[in-house]
Amino acid sequence: MPDKMYDKTGSELETTIINKSLDFARDRMKSLHASHGWDHVQRVIRNAEHIAATELQADAFIVRTAAILHDIARDEQDRAGGTLCHAELGSAEAEKFLLSEGLDPDRARHIARCILSHRYRKERKPESIEAMILYDADKLDSIGAIGIGRAFLFAGEVGARLHNSEVDISRTASYSEEDTAYREFMVKLRTVKDKMLTDEGRRLAQERHDFMIDYFRRLDEEVKGEL
Amino acid sequence: MPDKMYDKTGSELETTIINKSLDFARDRMKSLHASHGWDHVQRVIRNAEHIAATELQADAFIVRTAAILHDIARDEQDRAGGTLCHAELGSAEAEKFLLSEGLDPDRARHIARCILSHRYRKERKPESIEAMILYDADKLDSIGAIGIGRAFLFAGEVGARLHNSEVDISRTASYSEEDTAYREFMVKLRTVKDKMLTDEGRRLAQERHDFMIDYFRRLDEEVKGEL
Repeated sequence: MPDKMYDKTGSELETTIINKSLDFARDRMKSLHASHGWDHVQRVIRNAEHIAATELQADAFIVRTAAILHDIARDEQDRAGGTLCHAELGSAEAEKFLLSEGLDPDRARHIARCILSHRYRKERKPESIEAMILYDADKLDSIGAIGIGRAFLFAGEVGARLHNSEVDISRTASYSEEDTAYREFMVKLRTVKDKMLTDEGRRLAQERHDFMIDYFRRLDEEVKGEL
Repeated sequence: MPDKMYDKTGSELETTIINKSLDFARDRMKSLHASHGWDHVQRVIRNAEHIAATELQADAFIVRTAAILHDIARDEQDRAGGTLCHAELGSAEAEKFLLSEGLDPDRARHIARCILSHRYRKERKPESIEAMILYDADKLDSIGAIGIGRAFLFAGEVGARLHNSEVDISRTASYSEEDTAYREFMVKLRTVKDKMLTDEGRRLAQERHDFMIDYFRRLDEEVKGEL
């Protein structure tokens, strides 16, 4: 029964790789601020597993491992002031790590591609269902009540303001003192729901989007003294 | 017409004092983080003026000046790690400033007392209607959509986490890495509405409270993967 043997070996190897990936990623991310740290990865893993359960053709091991490792190079990007892409570096580093742990090259490459496309920059569109799931799981954590909290947490981390309704948002820059969670919402967060790639991701994103819209509308009203 | 003369003189003096107080307070608060900085004071001034308009016996000048100056010693408290009370120091400093600007001692003392009791510590209950208005105006800025944003902004400023549903909140401390906006909500923010002192303050607080409750309930659900 070579197939069964392979399955069993694969499964044991998978468990080992997942546990080692968790240790590796947690360690790589320990110096990060909370808005983009290990807490975020834990939520993305859970979102990814939830969506994977609705996409029957998805490989649960690929999804889980990619989610665990997707932000391992985040610290390098932050320290490089954004001149380095954490998806590119993280993808290469993850592939090397997985090969060193004995994963077959095709699956290691598959996981690396999920990580490379999770940021969806430079036309790097998520192609496989596993890549789409990781992309959606990551995006979900940027909207809704969590997205609101993370946007303010990040603003606090970079010394930004609560809200600045007097400033023309298009003339302010991210990572600046004039950056605000409201700017992040206007420029980025409110467009997220239209970029989702899976059915379950879209459904969850719509709910979180609606909640977030209500929040920022109310914030603006409170700040303007209309409430 | 000595009364009219006095009124006119009073009014000119009041305008001068308000403008000088604005310059003085803005300058004293320029190095503060956004969660407790000048933006906060501007919102408190507006809240205070709004409530004052519903309390006909309130002295608008006292309310406005107290609101402008209420947090001038906030920076000292932060730098002293909380061992110094910004209400005590700010009150004394404001009285000295107002006397130096030619305000009569009774009114300077009245404003100083509003500032002293705005934090409501050490049994220092706001006694006058103006003190009650300042207290309510300040508290309103800690709840609702603004309160949510400020709690996360503050968490980001002190390097705290987004949410930690696994930790027993009663065993965590403020200003620590285990501090979270959720802890602040559970320990403090959700009790604010029951402490309001004016009718209009109570009405606004109830609305902001309800909104805030919905937010943190949803945050908890999202973090626990229930949504």
